[in-house]
Amino acid sequence: MSFSTRTILVVGLGLIGGSFARAARLLPQVERVVGFDLNKEECDLALALEVVDEIATDLESGVRAADLVMLAVPVKAIETVMAQIAPWLSEDTILSDVGSTKLNIVDAARQIWPVLPAGFVPGHPIAGTEKSGVAASIVDLFNHRKVLLTPTERSDSEATIALARLWQSMGAEVVQMDPLRHDQVLAATSHLPHLLAFSLVDTLAAEAESTDIFRYAAGGFRDFTRIAASDPTMWHDVCFANKDQLLEQIDRF
Amino acid sequence: MSFSTRTILVVGLGLIGGSFARAARLLPQVERVVGFDLNKEECDLALALEVVDEIATDLESGVRAADLVMLAVPVKAIETVMAQIAPWLSEDTILSDVGSTKLNIVDAARQIWPVLPAGFVPGHPIAGTEKSGVAASIVDLFNHRKVLLTPTERSDSEATIALARLWQSMGAEVVQMDPLRHDQVLAATSHLPHLLAFSLVDTLAAEAESTDIFRYAAGGFRDFTRIAASDPTMWHDVCFANKDQLLEQIDRF
Repeated sequence: MSFSTRTILVVGLGLIGGSFARAARLLPQVERVVGFDLNKEECDLALALEVVDEIATDLESGVRAADLVMLAVPVKAIETVMAQIAPWLSEDTILSDVGSTKLNIVDAARQIWPVLPAGFVPGHPIAGTEKSGVAASIVDLFNHRKVLLTPTERSDSEATIALARLWQSMGAEVVQMDPLRHDQVLAATSHLPHLLAFSLVDTLAAEAESTDIFRYAAGGFRDFTRIAASDPTMWHDVCFANKDQLLEQIDRF
Repeated sequence: MSFSTRTILVVGLGLIGGSFARAARLLPQVERVVGFDLNKEECDLALALEVVDEIATDLESGVRAADLVMLAVPVKAIETVMAQIAPWLSEDTILSDVGSTKLNIVDAARQIWPVLPAGFVPGHPIAGTEKSGVAASIVDLFNHRKVLLTPTERSDSEATIALARLWQSMGAEVVQMDPLRHDQVLAATSHLPHLLAFSLVDTLAAEAESTDIFRYAAGGFRDFTRIAASDPTMWHDVCFANKDQLLEQIDRF
């Protein structure tokens, strides 16, 4: 088997997928960045903004032509898309993702494949802003950020290395980690803080005189509202996907 | 009675007191800004940095010479200092403060004075950074910030107006509010968020592998740690002083 990142298919052209595509287009080890998104408008915008070289005519042909398939759809959708594209992956396709949780994705993969593919290397770039959509994508989103890779017992080291090099070329620091440990660390440092911020804003919004309250919001509170301005559907899915670890952290808190 | 802000005594030369003094020195309605602090080093620093015109030789002479006494000591100390200086205030001295809670200060004043002084106008500038000390003071800290004044039923409108004009001249937007309402709003928008941030960082720090956890801290978490970097003693005092309103907000949360 031989793994490369010459032709990349990015499935899901949002903030993360779009930023990944933008950065990938600049790299010497990448020849072609193809995008796919169910939202036609995001695809048109991605082309207009030169985020990708082209848009795949359909998901199957896109996957079949790709050396690396990067799933940048919401956490819940990653499992679905993985099952859908499974038949179209060749044995030297690298399959990765940007999901904020990793155990659920590895578990879902075990349901799809009796033996996990050698090219399957889950990942998670710790980067993002409170914005979303391909219009918010920026080329240097991953510069000086950490990318956590959680290769499985079946991942081929060549696939892991090619993927790690790609992220490193984007300026990221790549760290390998066990999926469970990943989910524990992220529950504590990311999912719990977001849950607290959403809950706080929700609590205040429920008050009768909330307009008055928001008017006098001080510095500390502004930081909370900024966090709570993140995409609620995405965070809903992340919290559910990492339910066990998050509940444990809530108990500690 | 005639109220003015010509000679100002700032008791407590920290971030807020120092910034207030710096801004006051630039105003036409202010002739002299005198500082007082139990910490000799902060006094020397305030003189060296030209935060104040001079340091009072003792608290009594400073209070007796002042048209406005601004208490910028920690919340718990405001009550003590108020009792201490009560005998030295004249009937046309304006007495105000910058405490983050207001009910406790009005209550304490009622213990000191059978009839509240006409010049007593409690206040609270909603401004600050996570830094503390006179070295961190800046001249424009209150520019475009809200200052909440909670005059009592005995406050002379002339005293309230002179004080409001002073804050407005520093660029602040002055709002009058009932002390209870003030404490409710601040419990929701400031004290509860700080309590959550301190608790979160405390929870994570207690974990066995906390170094590892802090290493992978993502964006949302960094905002929390910034909030939790605020002076813990100050926030401890604020939370206790506003215990009733804060507990109510915690219940809602």
